[in-house]
Amino acid sequence: MTLARRLAAEALGTAMLLAVVVGSGIMAERLAGGNVAIALLANALATGAGLVALILMFGAVSGAHFNPAVTLSEAWQGKLPGREVAPYILVQVAGAFAGVAAAHGMFGEALFSASEHVRTGASQWWSECVATFGLIAVIMGCSRARPAMTPFAVAAYITSAYWFTASTSFANPAVTLARAATSTFAGIRPADTPGFILAQLAGAAAATALFGWLYRTPVSSGK
Amino acid sequence: MTLARRLAAEALGTAMLLAVVVGSGIMAERLAGGNVAIALLANALATGAGLVALILMFGAVSGAHFNPAVTLSEAWQGKLPGREVAPYILVQVAGAFAGVAAAHGMFGEALFSASEHVRTGASQWWSECVATFGLIAVIMGCSRARPAMTPFAVAAYITSAYWFTASTSFANPAVTLARAATSTFAGIRPADTPGFILAQLAGAAAATALFGWLYRTPVSSGK
Amino acid sequence: MTLARRLAAEALGTAMLLAVVVGSGIMAERLAGGNVAIALLANALATGAGLVALILMFGAVSGAHFNPAVTLSEAWQGKLPGREVAPYILVQVAGAFAGVAAAHGMFGEALFSASEHVRTGASQWWSECVATFGLIAVIMGCSRARPAMTPFAVAAYITSAYWFTASTSFANPAVTLARAATSTFAGIRPADTPGFILAQLAGAAAATALFGWLYRTPVSSGK
Amino acid sequence: MTLARRLAAEALGTAMLLAVVVGSGIMAERLAGGNVAIALLANALATGAGLVALILMFGAVSGAHFNPAVTLSEAWQGKLPGREVAPYILVQVAGAFAGVAAAHGMFGEALFSASEHVRTGASQWWSECVATFGLIAVIMGCSRARPAMTPFAVAAYITSAYWFTASTSFANPAVTLARAATSTFAGIRPADTPGFILAQLAGAAAATALFGWLYRTPVSSGK
Repeated sequence: MTLARRLAAEALGTAMLLAVVVGSGIMAERLAGGNVAIALLANALATGAGLVALILMFGAVSGAHFNPAVTLSEAWQGKLPGREVAPYILVQVAGAFAGVAAAHGMFGEALFSASEHVRTGASQWWSECVATFGLIAVIMGCSRARPAMTPFAVAAYITSAYWFTASTSFANPAVTLARAATSTFAGIRPADTPGFILAQLAGAAAATALFGWLYRTPVSSGK
Repeated sequence: MTLARRLAAEALGTAMLLAVVVGSGIMAERLAGGNVAIALLANALATGAGLVALILMFGAVSGAHFNPAVTLSEAWQGKLPGREVAPYILVQVAGAFAGVAAAHGMFGEALFSASEHVRTGASQWWSECVATFGLIAVIMGCSRARPAMTPFAVAAYITSAYWFTASTSFANPAVTLARAATSTFAGIRPADTPGFILAQLAGAAAATALFGWLYRTPVSSGK
Repeated sequence: MTLARRLAAEALGTAMLLAVVVGSGIMAERLAGGNVAIALLANALATGAGLVALILMFGAVSGAHFNPAVTLSEAWQGKLPGREVAPYILVQVAGAFAGVAAAHGMFGEALFSASEHVRTGASQWWSECVATFGLIAVIMGCSRARPAMTPFAVAAYITSAYWFTASTSFANPAVTLARAATSTFAGIRPADTPGFILAQLAGAAAATALFGWLYRTPVSSGK
Repeated sequence: MTLARRLAAEALGTAMLLAVVVGSGIMAERLAGGNVAIALLANALATGAGLVALILMFGAVSGAHFNPAVTLSEAWQGKLPGREVAPYILVQVAGAFAGVAAAHGMFGEALFSASEHVRTGASQWWSECVATFGLIAVIMGCSRARPAMTPFAVAAYITSAYWFTASTSFANPAVTLARAATSTFAGIRPADTPGFILAQLAGAAAATALFGWLYRTPVSSGK
């Protein structure tokens, strides 16, 4: 796979992920009649099911990161050349914003709109740290022991994490930035994104270090 | 597999798909007490679960298209002989109407009844375009990289797309036509079907072209 | 596997299936606060998830029929010796009643109690005929093309069929008889069981004949 | 795998399991607006999905028991050396309490708080006995016939057992002890834990004996 094709896959996959997350959030909030549990059930199921499809279809192309925290962790483990980190992250962020605009178009909203949803404080940051720690742990553990099952493990983990973290588990810096551009169910106030992203990177670093020991991942370069 | 057997599989599979979509829609609306989110949750889960079973059982016989947009895309990629396109589409449409009648029979409704459910406008068309683009993308990507997992990828995608598109993701011209013949939860006004079908074909064509490049699908004839 | 072990597996598996169906029905009705859609969602998910586990664990022992309609269809196809049909059905029915008693014990109900839930009429019978036709079709199709995936195909099908049939898809004579012995969510009036069972056998016979042609199943004896 | 690494996996996996169970219980109760069925649906889906990820990622390291009843059953079957039983159970219990604290931190609760949720009486004990019997049966049956599918079988079973048992299926002594330390949705009064644990061990012993006969598990030592 050439780098151009892999970047196209990362951009397109992240865009579709955001379309799923934001679009299903809008639909869920509109239909749920005020019951947030029902809305979050729909949002979590749509996201998990969407991830199954997206990782199965793009995994063999680009690795299906769709997530700067995953890209950084993979590079740290020597599974991605360092020079590809920046392009990966760039297209993930661009794709994420495109996905938000695509979702807004489907529901008749303006292309972008700043969120006013407050998500801050120690509980939220601890939630994002745990959520991203777990995500990296799932990817490292499953891709080592049962690589063919990784799409299902990741999708199941995120479905679960929507419910067991107080922040509903963003666990992804690109997703976090793009969700600041939607004033709907999935939104986050732009001012709150740095706290989320720092917590995510801390969790990702802790998992990469700990599971590097637990699984004794050999360091290698390239793919 | 002879063509007769494959056409029987396409007809029967599309009929069962419509029985699932329309039947579960009726049941969901009757039981949900006016909460549309709960009804759509049930409808989405029933459709996704039904697709797992249908694609697993018919995939090895006919390819389990159940969908003219998929048949056209496969033919364009050279995976289906051109002379089989028309018979495939014909039995899909006939099967779809038979499935609606089967569902109506189970719930004590008249065999057919024209829907009055308005589904039109740019947001709906964009939704159908995105939905079908994604469906073809999932099929092309997964059948290339992880063919044994395609039934799960497609079912998961449709479950998700019921929620992340404003149109609840018909993504299938045969399904669209047949759902015009049910004045229940899943219905669409007959006058609105051309817009849906055009949007679906546009999305399917875009995905076939783009992923043909991304995956560099070799062109071949026959199966 | 000796016949004794296979019969033990059929008895135990059918008992666990009924414990799942009846137990989750009681729990769902008690908690759902009168919203039948939510109760049926829980009942359908519990049944589908339970079937995944039960078929995975017992499939290699006895075939995991848990269902006289399946046993008769397998025997007709030459996959089960004729002399084993009666013992299979006998332990399935006995196990089914034991499972109802086990569920009642968990929820503090009398061991058995006759249901007063009316389930009769042409729509219900047509529903059971379609439901069992589909179940046999899924088993025959999937076990031929993708045998390792049969547990998931059957479980997904039943989850879907709870919603797309007006009868919530009993699709199993042993289950039907035992559910007459519970005056809870899952019950059926004893007088209504013959109609259900006849419809189920008709659907099973139609599927066995049709898919025997479609898949050209070779006739053989033994397993 | 050294014992230290396996114990780390058991501790971390059990901690993450409790974070999922307790965290999703808190979130579900807060959002469900008093409808316990919706809360339990979310709690069951989060737990089942979480188990898929946790068993896939840790299964190849430590066996992914996360449960003293499983560890004892494995040792009885000769699949785990007797000298490793105590360390396994110790880290499972310690991990379980750490997981409760992690969940409480995410939701702004005190690290630990004694539950006042009464769960006692014959129906509850019979429920736990059945639940654990079934869990051990699923593990023994599936790991013998379809080992690669065990993560899915166990997760599906627990999702189902949340609904078909009156106790919502703790089925795990370490989980039971740690859930006494949370005064939230998932809690159990400390005084009620011995009854649960005795019932769980009885069910596990019965399953190990019965399925040892059914599957004629050969006795061996070590792994």
